[in-house]
Amino acid sequence: MTDLSTATTTPTTSGNPLIAGARVAGTDVYNTAGDHLGEIYDVMLDKQTGKVAYAIMSFGGFLGLGEKYHPIPWSVLDYDTNRGGYVVPLTKDKLEAAPMYDSEGEPDWDDRAYGKRVHDYYGTMPYWMM
Amino acid sequence: MTDLSTATTTPTTSGNPLIAGARVAGTDVYNTAGDHLGEIYDVMLDKQTGKVAYAIMSFGGFLGLGEKYHPIPWSVLDYDTNRGGYVVPLTKDKLEAAPMYDSEGEPDWDDRAYGKRVHDYYGTMPYWMM
Repeated sequence: MTDLSTATTTPTTSGNPLIAGARVAGTDVYNTAGDHLGEIYDVMLDKQTGKVAYAIMSFGGFLGLGEKYHPIPWSVLDYDTNRGGYVVPLTKDKLEAAPMYDSEGEPDWDDRAYGKRVHDYYGTMPYWMM
Repeated sequence: MTDLSTATTTPTTSGNPLIAGARVAGTDVYNTAGDHLGEIYDVMLDKQTGKVAYAIMSFGGFLGLGEKYHPIPWSVLDYDTNRGGYVVPLTKDKLEAAPMYDSEGEPDWDDRAYGKRVHDYYGTMPYWMM
């Protein structure tokens, strides 16, 4: 890899801009049809690799009461600079049937059977295999 | 990768537990000598890959005034369950000479020359090459 860094010219600007975790939280989420689905509540990080396993999208509820949370694999989210939010290729129906939890029952994040169910639902590779 | 998933038994518990981004912020940071260096202020995520590029460690200051921020490559941080915080292999002197900024001058995160300087200082591979 050291060879690579000396052999190629280092571009001044990265193609992969960075974003602060605190700025991700609160960002709106839409689907491709333009429906507002919810907003990012938090991200779940893999401690070892430092990779985002899921974005947690919250929707419904009022002042935190009755709110539902969807863990969505990061690779499903696409940032749309025009909308200033994330876009996911999901209908409302597809989302409503997706794995979710509420404030009374957070899933066991370390349970891979649960993780596999989430990734299978969205058709993505589990974060621990990437 | 599909072969792997069918050939090996899926463990119930992951070796890489997940942590919520909001919980990372505020976590204490120590060095291996046990000195308290500061705390995690936020994480900087690579939008495209969803990988943590840096943990931002804050130290000094009072109620946000005069506070300094160090971007530290994620791979430098080790979570110590006994201490309930991250441990970095850095003396206070080494840390004080490390790239930092204050509330008046956030770096241009997309400038790879800056990123390279940070990673070189800690002797780690730049996040965009991992």
